[in-house]
Amino acid sequence: MVVGKVVGSVVATRKNERLLGSKFMIVQPLENMKAEGRIVAVDNVGAGIGEIVLVAVGSAARIGCAMDTAPVDAAIVGIIDNSIGLMED
Amino acid sequence: MVVGKVVGSVVATRKNERLLGSKFMIVQPLENMKAEGRIVAVDNVGAGIGEIVLVAVGSAARIGCAMDTAPVDAAIVGIIDNSIGLMED
Amino acid sequence: MVVGKVVGSVVATRKNERLLGSKFMIVQPLENMKAEGRIVAVDNVGAGIGEIVLVAVGSAARIGCAMDTAPVDAAIVGIIDNSIGLMED
Amino acid sequence: MVVGKVVGSVVATRKNERLLGSKFMIVQPLENMKAEGRIVAVDNVGAGIGEIVLVAVGSAARIGCAMDTAPVDAAIVGIIDNSIGLMED
Amino acid sequence: MVVGKVVGSVVATRKNERLLGSKFMIVQPLENMKAEGRIVAVDNVGAGIGEIVLVAVGSAARIGCAMDTAPVDAAIVGIIDNSIGLMED
Repeated sequence: MVVGKVVGSVVATRKNERLLGSKFMIVQPLENMKAEGRIVAVDNVGAGIGEIVLVAVGSAARIGCAMDTAPVDAAIVGIIDNSIGLMED
Repeated sequence: MVVGKVVGSVVATRKNERLLGSKFMIVQPLENMKAEGRIVAVDNVGAGIGEIVLVAVGSAARIGCAMDTAPVDAAIVGIIDNSIGLMED
Repeated sequence: MVVGKVVGSVVATRKNERLLGSKFMIVQPLENMKAEGRIVAVDNVGAGIGEIVLVAVGSAARIGCAMDTAPVDAAIVGIIDNSIGLMED
Repeated sequence: MVVGKVVGSVVATRKNERLLGSKFMIVQPLENMKAEGRIVAVDNVGAGIGEIVLVAVGSAARIGCAMDTAPVDAAIVGIIDNSIGLMED
Repeated sequence: MVVGKVVGSVVATRKNERLLGSKFMIVQPLENMKAEGRIVAVDNVGAGIGEIVLVAVGSAARIGCAMDTAPVDAAIVGIIDNSIGLMED
């Protein structure tokens, strides 16, 4: 998983029907995380803009969030409220 | 998922038979997105060149678009019509 | 998927038995494609050196080419014969 | 898999319920490893901060650690206690 | 798949029980290959240090090597003994 900050959201009126009801958030991974840029992730925990979240990618997002047959490859699965060694280089 | 712009398409007359009828679009991810370059994605929503779209990659593309047994690793699954914080750095 | 050029091939006499009969081609992704370097892909369509091909990666390669239980993570699944916007920046 | 050093941990009180009881460690891959930055991995072997560990990513983390339906895409699956050629360039 | 050179190995006495008996080799991908650094791969073909091997990553490693439920995301699945165009730029 990667840790990032929710920085926005996108809306798609015309979309795959299995995505109906999903909320798509834009997550900016923290600087020292494994990630090349922003990820669009389905929100599984009610995260808001500005929050630091845990994002699962790949089949884990789809299966882990009970959206097994949806075209989802990233999901916010936790809101970080404490950490050790997260920001140090 | 990543957000990108449809910039073209490719045609393959000789191909895996499970790809018959699929339309392959070239998507250029937006600059701050997690992606290293252009992706060839199957079009699942009728996207046209110039449109800003949502692309799912990996098994999500295949399974989420009901192409479970096709060699598809990326699909356009939505057309973006609204966003917050998509382009800012 | 990514689009690339077939630039060579490799032979492995000693290999996982589920790979018997597979042909391994080296594909150089086109410059603006999402890819960090050459990919070794199983040939599913009879591609030759110098041809521009469509490559599927991940579980799509294995399942989409009916090699469900083989250790294959990339496959050539089409030969490109026409395109719009493939090479422009 | 990649080899890295455990450098911290994160806590998420609000999270996907399938993650209840999981411990999330921050792993910094060793310098010459395939990895672009820190990974948040579920701890499957009781690793402590400062230890050098083996991390599996993707569906292997989820399925290999008997968390098949959890949104987990990385797991610490071993603690390295001996190696040949790990640090040389 | 990627082609690389076996440059070492790691030992983990404390590990996920599904990894018992597995041999973990360190593979350095060849320079022009798609790969960002060294991969730790389970040896499926009896490869030795210094040999040039074919590595499968992702679910292909696990399923293709009959280790379906093990936390394995990379495996050596062939030893290269001949090639065309492998090293040229």
